[in-house]
This record gives sequence, C-alpha cells and structure tokens, in this order.
Amino acid sequence: MNAVSKGRLIGVGTGPGDPELMTLKAVRALAEADVIAHFAKRGNNGNARTITEAHFRPGVIELPLLYPVTTEIDKSHDDYRSAITDFYQVSAQAVADHLDRGLTVAVLSEGDPLFYGSYMHLHIRLAHRYPTEVIPGVTAMSGCWSQTGLPIVQGDDVLTVLPGTMSEFELTRRLADTDAAVIMKVGRNLAKIRRALEATGKLDRAVYVERGTMPTTHDMPLKDKSDDKAPYFSIVLVAGWTGREEAEL
Amino acid sequence: MNAVSKGRLIGVGTGPGDPELMTLKAVRALAEADVIAHFAKRGNNGNARTITEAHFRPGVIELPLLYPVTTEIDKSHDDYRSAITDFYQVSAQAVADHLDRGLTVAVLSEGDPLFYGSYMHLHIRLAHRYPTEVIPGVTAMSGCWSQTGLPIVQGDDVLTVLPGTMSEFELTRRLADTDAAVIMKVGRNLAKIRRALEATGKLDRAVYVERGTMPTTHDMPLKDKSDDKAPYFSIVLVAGWTGREEAEL
Repeated sequence: MNAVSKGRLIGVGTGPGDPELMTLKAVRALAEADVIAHFAKRGNNGNARTITEAHFRPGVIELPLLYPVTTEIDKSHDDYRSAITDFYQVSAQAVADHLDRGLTVAVLSEGDPLFYGSYMHLHIRLAHRYPTEVIPGVTAMSGCWSQTGLPIVQGDDVLTVLPGTMSEFELTRRLADTDAAVIMKVGRNLAKIRRALEATGKLDRAVYVERGTMPTTHDMPLKDKSDDKAPYFSIVLVAGWTGREEAEL
Repeated sequence: MNAVSKGRLIGVGTGPGDPELMTLKAVRALAEADVIAHFAKRGNNGNARTITEAHFRPGVIELPLLYPVTTEIDKSHDDYRSAITDFYQVSAQAVADHLDRGLTVAVLSEGDPLFYGSYMHLHIRLAHRYPTEVIPGVTAMSGCWSQTGLPIVQGDDVLTVLPGTMSEFELTRRLADTDAAVIMKVGRNLAKIRRALEATGKLDRAVYVERGTMPTTHDMPLKDKSDDKAPYFSIVLVAGWTGREEAEL
C-alpha cells in the first residue's frame, strides 16, 4: 500500500438541471475520473447522474451512495440523525477505499457543491486527508432567476437566502429586513411563506419556480399560484431591484 | 425594416474568472452570436472578454461598451449618476441597433448576469422589447468558496450577501444576525469589515479571497492578513457550517 500514491477527490458541481449549464471544467473532470460517485435514493438514479451521464467515460467505475430509507422516522428524532450520520460515515469510507488505491474519485453534486450540497458531508471527512479540488457550479437559484429574467440584486442590495423550514416569525422578520430574498426548501412550507411575504408587503413581487432549467420547469408570480402544493426543491424569489426608475430617466 | 425579424438578446454569464468555469451553453452562445458586446474601461478589454475570447467565432462583430471617465467625479454626486445613466442609455441603443437588423447579440457578464451584473442595465431597457435569454454563470462567490474549500452553508443555514460599502453599524448588525456571510466590494472597506467581524466574534472564521479562480488569485484567513489593502472586487467569506461536530460523531 505504501507504494501507491493517494488518489484525488473532486467535488463536481453539475449545475441547476439543464445539462448545458455544466462547466467545461466539470465535463473534463468527469472524462478523467476513475470513479464517479453520486448520492441517490434507492430505485432512482438522482438528478446529478441524469444531468451528467453523457460525459462519463466508457468503463468508469460508478459508486452510487444510496440514502437509507428513513421515511418512517421523524426527521427531528435522534434515530434519523444517527441513521443519516452513519450513512455519511459509510459513504466517506467507500470513497476513501478508492482514493487509497490511487484512483481519482469525482463526486457529483447538483448545483454548487459547497452551497447546501450533500458532497459537503464527504468533504469534511476527507478533504484534510486527500488532495481535494472543488469545481463550483451554477446554483439552482441562479438557474431560477435567469430563467424568469428577474434582476435579483444590483448595486448595494442585500440578498438573504432563507430556508422555508424556519418559523413564520423568523421568516417574516428576515424578509422585512432585506432587499432581495431567495427562499429554498419550499415544499410544505408554501402557505407559511406566502403569509410572511404578505405581511412584509412583498407578495406582489414574489416569483415561484419549480424544477428551474429542467424540461418540466414551471414558474409564475406567486400571487397567481392558486394552491399551496409545491415540490421540496422549488424556490421563491423576491428581487431587490426593479431598475424601473433608472430605465425611465 | 419591417421585413427584418428582430434579433435575440443573450446575457451570457462568463463565470468567476477561470475560463474553464464557463458553461457549455455560454460557449455555444458565443460561437453562434453575430455580435458580442462587453462592458470595459477605456484602454482595458475587461475580464469577461479575456475569459471568453478563445470561443469567439472568426469575423464576429465586437461591440465594446466603454464606461465614461468618471474618476474625477464624486460617486454620490448627481453628475456621476447622470453620466452613468446616459452611458447605459446609449449602450442599450447601440445594442438595439444590432437587434433591429435581426442580429443575435451576446452581452458578456462576469459571474452571473442578474447577480450584481452590468448586463442588468441593458436587460431592463431591452428585455421587454426583444426576445431575450439569460444564461446563468458561476458567481464570483461560488468561485471563492470552492477555491478555499470552505463549506459555506448546509441544512437550514441562513446566508446573507452584504456589500462592504454599508455603514459599520449595519454591517455589524447584519453579521450578528446570520449563519453565513459573503461580503462583496471589499476594497477600501476592509478595516471597517474587520471591526464588524471582530465585534460579532466572527473574525477568526473569516476568509479573505482576492481575484478568485484567476491565475493571480490569493487567499488567506482574514486574521492573518497584515494590512487593510484590498482590490475592490475581493471578497470576505464566513462559513455557517463547520461540520466538525458531525464528522467527529
């Protein structure tokens, strides 16, 4: 084992969904990798793999990291945390086994790897032990505001990125105190998000985007959306800048 | 003129600096464009052009949009605002002239076009009048946290993007009230930013990045930086998540 030099770990941002929004560097990393790892649910290859598979080299070793089935466990329960933490530990070891054999392992990460990405759970366990590179990607939020042509921030605007999971009070307080906002993890929280936007006078400007840049994408002004059903990964955007005043000068 | 159909406007995100961090879609847009417009200072082609020029097709029409010389004018003065607004107006007209001839015009934008980009000043004047597409890019902040391997946000973290130009009070207040922060437009504001981070107990975790992903890039823990000199476009990052607790489980 001592004669084998360590392999390289590469966190590869695969962008928001449209395969053309991968970077040239991500494409090259996939073409050069010995092993391609990706997180997925059992029975589902995952978006990141679907986005990128055209660039896998023939014969590459694939390492699917399959989330444990936890649908029966309350997410705030210790059993859930411990199942997930065990899973990241085992996944990091599976990647390390390849790195120890001198192989280059690319880990796919939707959007940008260090921006809410699952890759981070491997990064914190492995980056100090192996040569590591992170290839940034276009985030889901950039994909969403570009698709809708919404100028999100300009000049001295403050942008706040908020999880839709926070309490209504916190969400309202933070929406009141920012120029622009991106609300992630919308899912079951849409009715609450709508109330917080209404309370801060921002509902009229809010835009709802589902599966941004993907073929099945769907966007509309939030005030025109007639129900509160939303997939977990949908996003709500509030632009900080209209530019209207400037354009009318 | 009536027989000519309108051209297409394309805002092209060119990424944070490394030419390999352009997307496949941006490369294709440049290869297909009839006209490539870019903002620049007189005597300086601008980063966006340098990043992308390898992909220009031979014979493409270049449209440099040269900022007026305003170094003598106070930026808060009405004369400055009026010079800049006139400049955006004239630039939009120059782009529109090509669009009216049925040509496709790609406007280069460093990072992501709708995230603090100059392209936005053209977008608000033209997007309602011409078929328009915005191609998102990897932002400078993603380039910076990826280069330094800093896991910026995870789980339910709140991220706040702040301009370093704001008052020390505001900067301190907002840094105290967020998990993770990105401070843009550092330049002459570094001493103030340092005090605000110190006051909120976040100086030890702050990372300073200059010209992220470019060949001359430079990064370090902010507390190890011995002076307060910084280029305007340098960035300070504070990660919201260390993952240390999880990794030690």
